[in-house]
Amino acid sequence: MEQQMRIKYPGSEKVYLPGQLFPDIRVGMRRVNLTPTVAKDENGTKHFQENAPVMVYDTSGPFSDPSVEIDLHKGLPRLREAWILARGGVEKLTEYSSEYCRERMADHRLDSLRFQHTTLPYRAKAGARITQMALAKQGIITPEMEYVAIRENMNCKELGILSHITPEFVRNEIAEGRAVIPANINHPEAEPMIIGRNFQVKINTNIGNSATTSGIEEEVEKAVWSCKWGGDTIMDLSTGANIHETREWIVRNSPVPVGTVPMYQAMEKVRGIAKNLTWELYRDTLIEQCEQGVDYFTIHCGIRRCNIHLSQGRMTGMVSRGGSIISEWCLQNDKESFLYEHFDDICDICARYDVAISLGDGLRPGSIYDANDAAQFAELDTMGELVERAWAKDVQAFIEGPGHVPMHKIRENMERQIEKCHGAPFYTLGPLVTDIAPGYDHITSAIGAAQIGWLGTAMLCYVTPKEHLALPDREDVRTGVVTYKLAAHAADLAKGHPGAQIRDNALSKARYEFRWKDQFNLSLDPDRALQYYKEAHYENGEFCTMCGPNFCAMRISHRLKDCTE
Amino acid sequence: MEQQMRIKYPGSEKVYLPGQLFPDIRVGMRRVNLTPTVAKDENGTKHFQENAPVMVYDTSGPFSDPSVEIDLHKGLPRLREAWILARGGVEKLTEYSSEYCRERMADHRLDSLRFQHTTLPYRAKAGARITQMALAKQGIITPEMEYVAIRENMNCKELGILSHITPEFVRNEIAEGRAVIPANINHPEAEPMIIGRNFQVKINTNIGNSATTSGIEEEVEKAVWSCKWGGDTIMDLSTGANIHETREWIVRNSPVPVGTVPMYQAMEKVRGIAKNLTWELYRDTLIEQCEQGVDYFTIHCGIRRCNIHLSQGRMTGMVSRGGSIISEWCLQNDKESFLYEHFDDICDICARYDVAISLGDGLRPGSIYDANDAAQFAELDTMGELVERAWAKDVQAFIEGPGHVPMHKIRENMERQIEKCHGAPFYTLGPLVTDIAPGYDHITSAIGAAQIGWLGTAMLCYVTPKEHLALPDREDVRTGVVTYKLAAHAADLAKGHPGAQIRDNALSKARYEFRWKDQFNLSLDPDRALQYYKEAHYENGEFCTMCGPNFCAMRISHRLKDCTE
Repeated sequence: MEQQMRIKYPGSEKVYLPGQLFPDIRVGMRRVNLTPTVAKDENGTKHFQENAPVMVYDTSGPFSDPSVEIDLHKGLPRLREAWILARGGVEKLTEYSSEYCRERMADHRLDSLRFQHTTLPYRAKAGARITQMALAKQGIITPEMEYVAIRENMNCKELGILSHITPEFVRNEIAEGRAVIPANINHPEAEPMIIGRNFQVKINTNIGNSATTSGIEEEVEKAVWSCKWGGDTIMDLSTGANIHETREWIVRNSPVPVGTVPMYQAMEKVRGIAKNLTWELYRDTLIEQCEQGVDYFTIHCGIRRCNIHLSQGRMTGMVSRGGSIISEWCLQNDKESFLYEHFDDICDICARYDVAISLGDGLRPGSIYDANDAAQFAELDTMGELVERAWAKDVQAFIEGPGHVPMHKIRENMERQIEKCHGAPFYTLGPLVTDIAPGYDHITSAIGAAQIGWLGTAMLCYVTPKEHLALPDREDVRTGVVTYKLAAHAADLAKGHPGAQIRDNALSKARYEFRWKDQFNLSLDPDRALQYYKEAHYENGEFCTMCGPNFCAMRISHRLKDCTE
Repeated sequence: MEQQMRIKYPGSEKVYLPGQLFPDIRVGMRRVNLTPTVAKDENGTKHFQENAPVMVYDTSGPFSDPSVEIDLHKGLPRLREAWILARGGVEKLTEYSSEYCRERMADHRLDSLRFQHTTLPYRAKAGARITQMALAKQGIITPEMEYVAIRENMNCKELGILSHITPEFVRNEIAEGRAVIPANINHPEAEPMIIGRNFQVKINTNIGNSATTSGIEEEVEKAVWSCKWGGDTIMDLSTGANIHETREWIVRNSPVPVGTVPMYQAMEKVRGIAKNLTWELYRDTLIEQCEQGVDYFTIHCGIRRCNIHLSQGRMTGMVSRGGSIISEWCLQNDKESFLYEHFDDICDICARYDVAISLGDGLRPGSIYDANDAAQFAELDTMGELVERAWAKDVQAFIEGPGHVPMHKIRENMERQIEKCHGAPFYTLGPLVTDIAPGYDHITSAIGAAQIGWLGTAMLCYVTPKEHLALPDREDVRTGVVTYKLAAHAADLAKGHPGAQIRDNALSKARYEFRWKDQFNLSLDPDRALQYYKEAHYENGEFCTMCGPNFCAMRISHRLKDCTE
């Protein structure tokens, strides 16, 4: 199985760039090596001109490093543990704080499912301020901050491309709340990454089955598959059995931050009866997951009882699972949402592990008709209030957004979010720009995602072709991730992210020079590009099957160059 | 074979709306019939509430009308012939004007390939002004103009939706050059449609093989397949053998306008040697195609010899086949382009058949790097000059555009085109907003297409997943057409096209009420939506496989509605 998990990108090798403030930092990236350009002179002699390799942002972690031993039963190397300990302020616990966790650990029927190399968790000592935000506010640049600065810039400096992204810039963005490094101290395996509008647009992919039989191995395999194609974070949305054990395997083997919606597990604990949820049960679930290493929680605390009625005039009511659950709880118990009431308590918990809060949008529109309505914007106002309360407790936070929005209403979403939420990062699902294309909603949503990414959204939650119809299979996940990578990259180009165009230029040059393999190796999905090309039965010729051998525009264009030079 | 060509949309029927100015007009459209909403009252009694059927713009012509006999050997009914003859000014020729055409018709080896029911062509009498533009300028509303007004509005009036699109509005848009009805008098089988920024965004699909063995039946089948999924026009880009005969079959059986790039056939006639092209040979090709019924010609007359060198500093030179051919001709013969020099002659020919000119962008960028460069914009300036010359001769015209453009440079393309080309319709290929995703270029380009459509582009040329890699197969065409339909529709929503949101709303309502079949029937690709749903093994349940039966947000949302009412 470990062998299957190995990731190999064609024509590429794993390289590491070192830190300067922290020389022991090694930032992994993928270097795509290119073949030379071949030109003939007047005498027909061939000349070779080197093409510089291209650095590519790499989310695959150790899985693409042949020098690292992969053993899913041991988990990935604990990259950040030494950094965390060196900063101080944390202590290793002697037992799990969550009652539920202790029960699960004591249940020997689960032994066969259990990840064996679990270690006891860390937690901030009482009074210690250990989050990236707390450190940033104190003017401290952490290794995580330098790491993400290097990761964002790749080899721009060597290429003479100016970048605004310095470790100090990163620190300031974190301190101001405009960016988040999701980095639970109990997930030291994850490579630091940053979510903020002055950085590359990131994408999240969802894994986890609803009620079917997906096993643990399969879930880990899904996580690695997502990382292979470029997922920057994964959300484990499992709602089936053995959520606790499955998550442990995922977190221990995930090189990217892991998010969850703790309400889903809380609902499992009350067997799906929302009315029976309690703050105490939810609190225990948060702590359980904090100590496992979940990096961010989606919490639908922006729904207030007084706003629930606003969804009643809608075409599609509430389409957020978490949102509809807490709303049902409010109405059935005739109380204000305990997520809202206990928000400060939630922040106190998250601050001790540096878990970020993703303020979930329970009232997001579920259709074009409902976009930008009173319900959605009332919740956004509440989120603006909550994000400041999170920051007051040094908790990193970002804001979730729609959903379904026609193109002409996208800008208002982004501008309003920046204003009402004081610049906190925005994390949107699409949005879909029309509702008439089920089966193609990865595309309807990528259109909206690229635009809102350009306007400032920091992270995009992917959508697969099966959205609204079924759970995605392996190929759907690949299609969804690649679709969102291209949308995010289009946004990076439009935003002018430093060096974003290097890869486009290299690929375009390879295309024009008929260096087919280089073209494929530089593409987001080399396997698919190669497959389409091969199926058409031409190999390495100086023409593609688009125009055929006699009519290739690029071939004629090369001849023109000879004519005019 | 004819039976295979029949198009059946699930849950839908073909209906016709009549004209008012021209009561014998029957505008075909598709009516999607919906099931009622079922609600239970307090006593558990079911109540049924009707859902109004939804009218859908229909490009499938007689192929979806079970009352019309389909015989590919006879061709489609000649819908517009009576209108054309009633207007006068045209005469039926006694022989074909094209020398090449006469040769082909006399060649009995081709008899087996030939469409048998060909009739001799019409042509304007000397001095008669018969184009839609000529008539519009004279204040005449043609049946074609009323037809497209009805087609654009569907049943908006019955629904109480105001529309700016009246027959007189159409006439004025045509007269001003802001819109085109491609309607060769020798293609009376085509249903009138309009291309202009104050109308629905249209899409074109390309058919035709480069050098392989695609047969005549296969080409006709491709055309019908494109119409089934929603292609508004088709371009026949064939470059192989028997172009003339293949085109005849396509035109006689096409319910949508047909475009070509006459240069491709001209190149076949000189066996691929650009140097040997002559104006006389090209002219004969134009006349040949005018008399067959091609509705618009892409002509790369915007490339001037003095501007060819501007492409030399590019990353990807010239990527237009037509553009590179005429450039090669200019350089090899050391002359100004004959397409430019003879532009007025070209217009004189087109005016006699009402063939529209699509001013081809031979210098369009082929990469993100080359977008919005001097070469591209120099050609746009020339096009602006030429479009006024076309209008002076009553020839309808539109302007082709890129290609490859990052999002932040799209707006400049559109605004500049409107300014330099005096409001003539824009017809773009995508544009692709990044170059790093070969295999997914239907998506990279749909992102750009939706945006530029919103900003005012009138027609989008589709791109398939095989772009840059291979020729598309049947499934690629389907994917490409549906992708572009959704992008065009997203643009219509954003532009506020009258009634555009009706279909979204109906689908969203069906989704929320778990009326799965209605949801599928309203979608752009009902077959695929149903397939994904069925593969997931649930049928007609009140939940989808996204959340599973216990956690469905919409289901909970329905319960909430009961709570708060």
